[in-house]
Amino acid sequence: MNDIDAAMGELERAMGSLRARGIQICSNIQGKPLDLPEYQPIFAAMASYDLPIWMHPYRSADIPDYPTEERSLYEIWWTLGWPYESSVAMSRLVFSGIFDRHPNLKIITHHMGGMIPYFEGRVGPGLDQLGTRTSDRDYTKLLKELKKRPLDYFKMFYADTATFGAYDPTVCGLKFFGVDNVLFASDAPFDPEGGRMYIRETIKVIDRLPISDAEREQIYWRNAARLLKLD
Amino acid sequence: MNDIDAAMGELERAMGSLRARGIQICSNIQGKPLDLPEYQPIFAAMASYDLPIWMHPYRSADIPDYPTEERSLYEIWWTLGWPYESSVAMSRLVFSGIFDRHPNLKIITHHMGGMIPYFEGRVGPGLDQLGTRTSDRDYTKLLKELKKRPLDYFKMFYADTATFGAYDPTVCGLKFFGVDNVLFASDAPFDPEGGRMYIRETIKVIDRLPISDAEREQIYWRNAARLLKLD
Repeated sequence: MNDIDAAMGELERAMGSLRARGIQICSNIQGKPLDLPEYQPIFAAMASYDLPIWMHPYRSADIPDYPTEERSLYEIWWTLGWPYESSVAMSRLVFSGIFDRHPNLKIITHHMGGMIPYFEGRVGPGLDQLGTRTSDRDYTKLLKELKKRPLDYFKMFYADTATFGAYDPTVCGLKFFGVDNVLFASDAPFDPEGGRMYIRETIKVIDRLPISDAEREQIYWRNAARLLKLD
Repeated sequence: MNDIDAAMGELERAMGSLRARGIQICSNIQGKPLDLPEYQPIFAAMASYDLPIWMHPYRSADIPDYPTEERSLYEIWWTLGWPYESSVAMSRLVFSGIFDRHPNLKIITHHMGGMIPYFEGRVGPGLDQLGTRTSDRDYTKLLKELKKRPLDYFKMFYADTATFGAYDPTVCGLKFFGVDNVLFASDAPFDPEGGRMYIRETIKVIDRLPISDAEREQIYWRNAARLLKLD
């Protein structure tokens, strides 16, 4: 991704002759946001294939938690930093107008959509007031240029179920994105048992959800089959 | 807070002769984390009064979202940055062992506990593996020195209901902290109507929660009366 022509060449090779069903990108490229013009050919190409992008959060311990420090402590860069990175990248994509340019763009966000569902109130009525906290830019104009409320763009993302077996967050995320936009994932093998625990616990959570069996099937595999255009 | 002796003097005056029922602090002090030794007298004093600390998130637009930029865009510093700041501060306090030193310390976190309830899986089984992603420090030793699982310390915080009228996040946060640890707050007057909307919508959410009337009373006022030792 630091050489966009090479990245585009590899994208075309993977999606074309190798018949890949999607690509994965990180939530930032060497510290740069995904809404920069240089990365737009990637999103345009995947919109034209009508196949998904998995967006994985990225940050490491060398981003300090406080400006007075050199490194992130206690793995905060991972625990909180990763879902934060996902959420910031989602916000940047939304406000860059990417979903107005590519209404069929499919981006699958890790860990049940980062922070967005839990902060539905902030990205909802909060962002409806975008601009009231800013004096050096006219965000009121930006809000008018967008075709939808910010909240409605955030709901256009897809989310996976990798909450490490957390039931209430899964309910919260599912309500936010809707059953058509949630896909099974477990984050295996990064659990205390080295692989089985998050798969088992995620299945337990999905089996407990107050939804129909047809909806459960959607989350387990039908949404993936639809998005990835599998037979 | 940049002059801890003066801050302690004001704390003693407010809590003593003015009979204040608690204090508010920000989630960082001029960019410095709350677990620094210099701030510990504040926490020790409030633990000895057995009265709460409200911890308000703080960050401004001059903290960029990406290292390649100068300022935060689209008010991300507020929408996502604030709950992130709350969560990072909570993590630092937990791993500094503050709840082992002061088991009765009462810290009320804004916006339903920041990110923590939604990332229960990350602060639960995720942080049980603290150290597996770090090679330059021995966090395994730290985990052993703490008396509880990291998750159990996060549950010792209190949280307010200021989710701006978001029902599912409120359910999720309430399940995480438990009905004894959740207090009414609305964030009025920072809503699109300039004051009434978040109060009205938060009340609607609390009235819909699947809890008993006695539990609803706890959230509305009994928990506050207990914590603040009001008659």
